[in-house]
Amino acid sequence: MIKEAASVITKVRNKVPLVQAITNYVTVNDCANILLAFGASPAMVEAYDEAYDFAAISSAIYINLGTLTKEQEEAAVLASISAKVNKVPVVLDPVACSAIPRKNLVIKRMLELGRIDVIKGNGGEIKFLAGQASKTRGVDSVDDGEGLEKACVDLAQKYNCVVAATGKEDIITDGERVAIIQNGVEMLTKITGAGCMLGALCSAAVGAEKDSFIAVVNAVLSINLAGEAAFKEVQLPGSFRTKLIDNVYLLSEERYAKEGKVIWK
Amino acid sequence: MIKEAASVITKVRNKVPLVQAITNYVTVNDCANILLAFGASPAMVEAYDEAYDFAAISSAIYINLGTLTKEQEEAAVLASISAKVNKVPVVLDPVACSAIPRKNLVIKRMLELGRIDVIKGNGGEIKFLAGQASKTRGVDSVDDGEGLEKACVDLAQKYNCVVAATGKEDIITDGERVAIIQNGVEMLTKITGAGCMLGALCSAAVGAEKDSFIAVVNAVLSINLAGEAAFKEVQLPGSFRTKLIDNVYLLSEERYAKEGKVIWK
Amino acid sequence: MIKEAASVITKVRNKVPLVQAITNYVTVNDCANILLAFGASPAMVEAYDEAYDFAAISSAIYINLGTLTKEQEEAAVLASISAKVNKVPVVLDPVACSAIPRKNLVIKRMLELGRIDVIKGNGGEIKFLAGQASKTRGVDSVDDGEGLEKACVDLAQKYNCVVAATGKEDIITDGERVAIIQNGVEMLTKITGAGCMLGALCSAAVGAEKDSFIAVVNAVLSINLAGEAAFKEVQLPGSFRTKLIDNVYLLSEERYAKEGKVIWK
Repeated sequence: MIKEAASVITKVRNKVPLVQAITNYVTVNDCANILLAFGASPAMVEAYDEAYDFAAISSAIYINLGTLTKEQEEAAVLASISAKVNKVPVVLDPVACSAIPRKNLVIKRMLELGRIDVIKGNGGEIKFLAGQASKTRGVDSVDDGEGLEKACVDLAQKYNCVVAATGKEDIITDGERVAIIQNGVEMLTKITGAGCMLGALCSAAVGAEKDSFIAVVNAVLSINLAGEAAFKEVQLPGSFRTKLIDNVYLLSEERYAKEGKVIWK
Repeated sequence: MIKEAASVITKVRNKVPLVQAITNYVTVNDCANILLAFGASPAMVEAYDEAYDFAAISSAIYINLGTLTKEQEEAAVLASISAKVNKVPVVLDPVACSAIPRKNLVIKRMLELGRIDVIKGNGGEIKFLAGQASKTRGVDSVDDGEGLEKACVDLAQKYNCVVAATGKEDIITDGERVAIIQNGVEMLTKITGAGCMLGALCSAAVGAEKDSFIAVVNAVLSINLAGEAAFKEVQLPGSFRTKLIDNVYLLSEERYAKEGKVIWK
Repeated sequence: MIKEAASVITKVRNKVPLVQAITNYVTVNDCANILLAFGASPAMVEAYDEAYDFAAISSAIYINLGTLTKEQEEAAVLASISAKVNKVPVVLDPVACSAIPRKNLVIKRMLELGRIDVIKGNGGEIKFLAGQASKTRGVDSVDDGEGLEKACVDLAQKYNCVVAATGKEDIITDGERVAIIQNGVEMLTKITGAGCMLGALCSAAVGAEKDSFIAVVNAVLSINLAGEAAFKEVQLPGSFRTKLIDNVYLLSEERYAKEGKVIWK
């Protein structure tokens, strides 16, 4: 299994998937840079007049609800509809869905009219979407993670998608298979956008690998292994952020197999 | 007084204030990263449908008029109204108010309907708001600073708020107390966003310290001391920007007392 | 000729041109920082209510069609109209014009109602605008460059402007003079925004140098020479991006003459 997951990085680099991103303005630059470092081709096409048509030619679509303007909201729904028509996978990052009710109206519309293949969120967001009680504060989860694995499986089955919940351990499931990932460093929570960047990597991965579960395992490992390597070099957030991109660029199939700590269920 | 100001960093790290920011797209990533490095929890909630409700659960609100879209304009006014209702302090950065008349309509509306606790601007902006003649060019002040202290005191008394004017020396006042800060390096003017980042730090500080004057003194010292430390390490703007975040992360109560150059009046 | 081109950096640093930018949200921070490092004064004034008036006081205007919101679209057209009235040079980056039809409606309106002095694009975009068949993928050119010089000259003559097409070699022309630039490193394509940053530098250069052809030669040399110097220091994209800004700050007249590889036709 780890070999399959590791091979996704090579598939990404060979295919150079075109990732359309509709994402927040806080970390949009980081998302574009990490996609390039990973081997994908980012295209932040989020204007209302452009989103539907561009989705048709994309390898995958990343929709992040962070700073969702009204125009982005409409573009996100249009892109997910186009994705359904044109059979393009969609990754959703439901930022702050448990704290801000409006986010859920957008998710509902995407589910009803369009397509969602992967939901990547923090523990609090995933539990909330699965209908469980959860604890969040602003855009961050302060949930203890109890019952999170069940929430992930429930949510994956409910919407027939892959779910990834980040936290001290990261959980990935397609409703049947479950992978628990024990890599990563706390410094990833001291910079803005680690979650957004992970969502972007998920999109690149599902744009190059048909098994979305395996693709997302690769993406989660990628940011965690790059984070570990960056933290070995520097222990301060400004410099760490720079080194994180460097180390995504340096990822190799071998490193996943050698350093990945995955529990497969 | 310096001990009180220094202690704010510890209060921020203990409370982890939730800062809602409605800020420009140029430096929004820098603002989020510096807030995290400082110990606060940033949430860039600026959508029209989200701003009012989110303000109610925030510790402080940062409103920066830089690239103010129509949607942000409405969100800013709504957030400041919510801040008044819910007793949440608001920090305003009136970017380019002397060069662009529209900014003042927004400020007027915020003052009439909402709440402003701290105004942080460059010398030209503060003098303009105080009704004095001033010199600005684009978004930068080219004012010589003559009469600036009086302008700060006048403005603070006029709106019953704390005023901070940045320049070679920084001036902070609540209309009675005045602090002149002589720290900082010129390299802070060679990167975009030092002013925006300072505004963000002001928000975090007033979100953790009730005495807004003391809070803002801490914020101004924080960016200046971090800037001095960064400049010791590197003298080029790209690298300096990275090290600035690193050095905000490294700030300690001791450094304020040891290195802060404050004239209290 | 190289001496004339080299001298533009000094003109920029002496004049500190005020550059109004209406640019995409992905790389807006990079554009502001590179303008500061180059010696210009960036002002990202892109709000509908601000764009027309601010254009009148700017030294040059940079319009980049990357993530063009509806509000930015209107602001871009207004700014180009104001530029015509107020005799301010306009640099256009027609991002993805060959992939996204809507971009061309905006360009058409700018040409009809306003003013465009420089068009800076990748090979695919320039060939498309010149009416030639071209190959692009998403926002990137995958064109082989055959016939590109003719496309540049045709386009320059068609709209009476300076055209710059980037690629392995960069081509600059005003319809009569042609310069081929052979500097640069591939790493510039592994970070987001090298093209946007070049567009920003073109604006600063035409804001300080009346001969737009010479100004654009300087801008293209500037990013390429800075890229070469940065790549000598680091070979990874995150760190390279930081060093790129550092090395723009370090540019000197001497380096252009010494290291610039320009074929003048």
